[in-house]
Amino acid sequence: MFAECLEQVRKTTPLIHCITNYVTVNDVANVLLACGGSPIMSDEPEDVADITSICGGIDINIGTLNMRSIEAMHIAGKKAAGLHHTLLLDPVGAGASRLRTETAVSLMEELPFDVIRGNVSELKALALGSTTTKGVDADAADAVTDRNLDDMVSFAKSYAKTTGSIIAITGAIDLVADADRCFCIRNGRPEMGRITGTGCQLSALMTAYVTANPDRPLEASAAAVCLMGLAGEIGWSRMQEGDGNATYRNRIIDAICNIDGETLGKGANFEIR
Amino acid sequence: MFAECLEQVRKTTPLIHCITNYVTVNDVANVLLACGGSPIMSDEPEDVADITSICGGIDINIGTLNMRSIEAMHIAGKKAAGLHHTLLLDPVGAGASRLRTETAVSLMEELPFDVIRGNVSELKALALGSTTTKGVDADAADAVTDRNLDDMVSFAKSYAKTTGSIIAITGAIDLVADADRCFCIRNGRPEMGRITGTGCQLSALMTAYVTANPDRPLEASAAAVCLMGLAGEIGWSRMQEGDGNATYRNRIIDAICNIDGETLGKGANFEIR
Amino acid sequence: MFAECLEQVRKTTPLIHCITNYVTVNDVANVLLACGGSPIMSDEPEDVADITSICGGIDINIGTLNMRSIEAMHIAGKKAAGLHHTLLLDPVGAGASRLRTETAVSLMEELPFDVIRGNVSELKALALGSTTTKGVDADAADAVTDRNLDDMVSFAKSYAKTTGSIIAITGAIDLVADADRCFCIRNGRPEMGRITGTGCQLSALMTAYVTANPDRPLEASAAAVCLMGLAGEIGWSRMQEGDGNATYRNRIIDAICNIDGETLGKGANFEIR
Repeated sequence: MFAECLEQVRKTTPLIHCITNYVTVNDVANVLLACGGSPIMSDEPEDVADITSICGGIDINIGTLNMRSIEAMHIAGKKAAGLHHTLLLDPVGAGASRLRTETAVSLMEELPFDVIRGNVSELKALALGSTTTKGVDADAADAVTDRNLDDMVSFAKSYAKTTGSIIAITGAIDLVADADRCFCIRNGRPEMGRITGTGCQLSALMTAYVTANPDRPLEASAAAVCLMGLAGEIGWSRMQEGDGNATYRNRIIDAICNIDGETLGKGANFEIR
Repeated sequence: MFAECLEQVRKTTPLIHCITNYVTVNDVANVLLACGGSPIMSDEPEDVADITSICGGIDINIGTLNMRSIEAMHIAGKKAAGLHHTLLLDPVGAGASRLRTETAVSLMEELPFDVIRGNVSELKALALGSTTTKGVDADAADAVTDRNLDDMVSFAKSYAKTTGSIIAITGAIDLVADADRCFCIRNGRPEMGRITGTGCQLSALMTAYVTANPDRPLEASAAAVCLMGLAGEIGWSRMQEGDGNATYRNRIIDAICNIDGETLGKGANFEIR
Repeated sequence: MFAECLEQVRKTTPLIHCITNYVTVNDVANVLLACGGSPIMSDEPEDVADITSICGGIDINIGTLNMRSIEAMHIAGKKAAGLHHTLLLDPVGAGASRLRTETAVSLMEELPFDVIRGNVSELKALALGSTTTKGVDADAADAVTDRNLDDMVSFAKSYAKTTGSIIAITGAIDLVADADRCFCIRNGRPEMGRITGTGCQLSALMTAYVTANPDRPLEASAAAVCLMGLAGEIGWSRMQEGDGNATYRNRIIDAICNIDGETLGKGANFEIR
């Protein structure tokens, strides 16, 4: 199933409109090309409706939001929704500032997101109104662990039901849930946290995967999460003495470039709850 | 001849003002340093006239344009023109949105570009008013091939005559033409299309090459195109099992750092029509 | 002492708010993660006060300033100052444009910077009102050398006294001075000048080091400068045939990821004047 999701991306080359932060945008573009998709970036209100029209999906990431790009997110999102494109929200830093939380909430009220992907602190901030003190990284206190897995699965399903979106909570254990089913995924490595932008990259991958697999958005979302984690494992296995996070960053994108359907199928490590 | 163009860049360290998209800007800066030039980025209308004044050339790339940066492009372009600096336009996404097409047209009406470099879909959109559905990548239907090479050479020369600019159309076969002569270049590898920003990098290289070789802009432009393609070939030859597009990106810039005049002279693969 | 500074960063994971240029922002984020800190980027006036509140230090880099980000620098700087956070200014291109010089001067008038780090041309422009014609790189005529070292040490100390800030002037020889003492540091390699953003990366490192070592800001600043230079040496020692500036960029960040306190202590090459 995951193998088919991957091959569908490579076959259809989904064109993804990214309104994303300038910190990790180059990696986001390269990871979309690596997986078989194609990126286009535009965040000017006068430009985004045209650009999103020729795409198949939109990835809205609020990582370095500003008043102009927020306006562009709303315009592009409405256009994409009208065209029944895939819509994904990455609420970077929700809970860390009033503007970020309010922007995420306002976009969610207005737009029918297919997927909302964030770390547990961001998702809790949106669902429960809690705030974080760790910036764009998840608070340790919030981590999904084997001890609280049942509770977190319930939270993910319940928030998926409330929002009508697939909820992806990524961390040591990744959860990808709709109202009924939750993929609990154990791919990846802790060292991925030493690289900026693996979350942003994943959001772009998920947008491409759902766009290329419109009939099975939950499986496609889970496939992208497993792919990212598996790439982290394969990339790590190629690290040599003296390598660090800069090389690891490259090795992960390289792995996404090279992983085929069979490798993803065999390497994906998940259970469905 | 190409060897001399390259050595002239290394000897004179041309300082290039880039108003370029934030997706690939880091690679653009590193490729300018790799080739022997020096980059400076500024896109604030209040800042660009001063900055461009101390440079030798300007690279205007509309990849993530916004209302502020468009204004900056006009101000900087006029200042650079008044100082007889090298001016290059990279009309990223022309034909993909009204704003991009209009911005490119408006800049071309106002500024005496030495070089206009884009893919075939972008150049056709500007010359013929056609539109693309592939975003920032060339439409397959538009590709320059051996079958339509004569027609494309005529198109490039004719558009060079109309605009008074050197026209560079890059793809599987690259064309670099003025009104009378067209370099048809067969360096490069198809895998370069899996990396974001090789076109943006090339535009910056061309600006540096023309700035350092003001008496032979057509040859300097062609030299830069051969250099980029040759770097793609050399970079590819260094790829190892498990490497992908992230490593390839680094290998290409590394190659530009290391290619000397002799290597470029021997490796350049072109004919003049 | 430097070893303790390093370990203090790894132990406390300082969260650093960066208002920095979009050219090198990804490297800045990865270098902060590499050294043991944590980055957060925000440059929207409506967002920065909240974001900086949850951080321990702020790195203000004017490399691609615009009217919006300048406003954000003032708002965030005032908030950070009120909270007694570490404040660092990197006046990229001061002396190269009126807007950059005035912005740096205005920020320095308003904010109690703990550290001001730039190349010698930028610092001279701010201290003496001189202007540069080399853009964002130091003018060769301005270089700190063994011949003018005494004068430059006096200049650094004197400007530190005037401003009340630690003054870091980086180049072939790096100077890190307060009013009384000046670290003269001879780590690093000339090839680092072929990579964009090593200065920006260093500013972020220094912000993290001072934030994690509030009781010894001069030593912490010097430790960060030695770390960057030592990483340049270690990174260079790992370069292979055919590697160039793109690979060197990765190797330097990798080295920062791996250097431990003992290595820094042994490798730091400095005298105090």
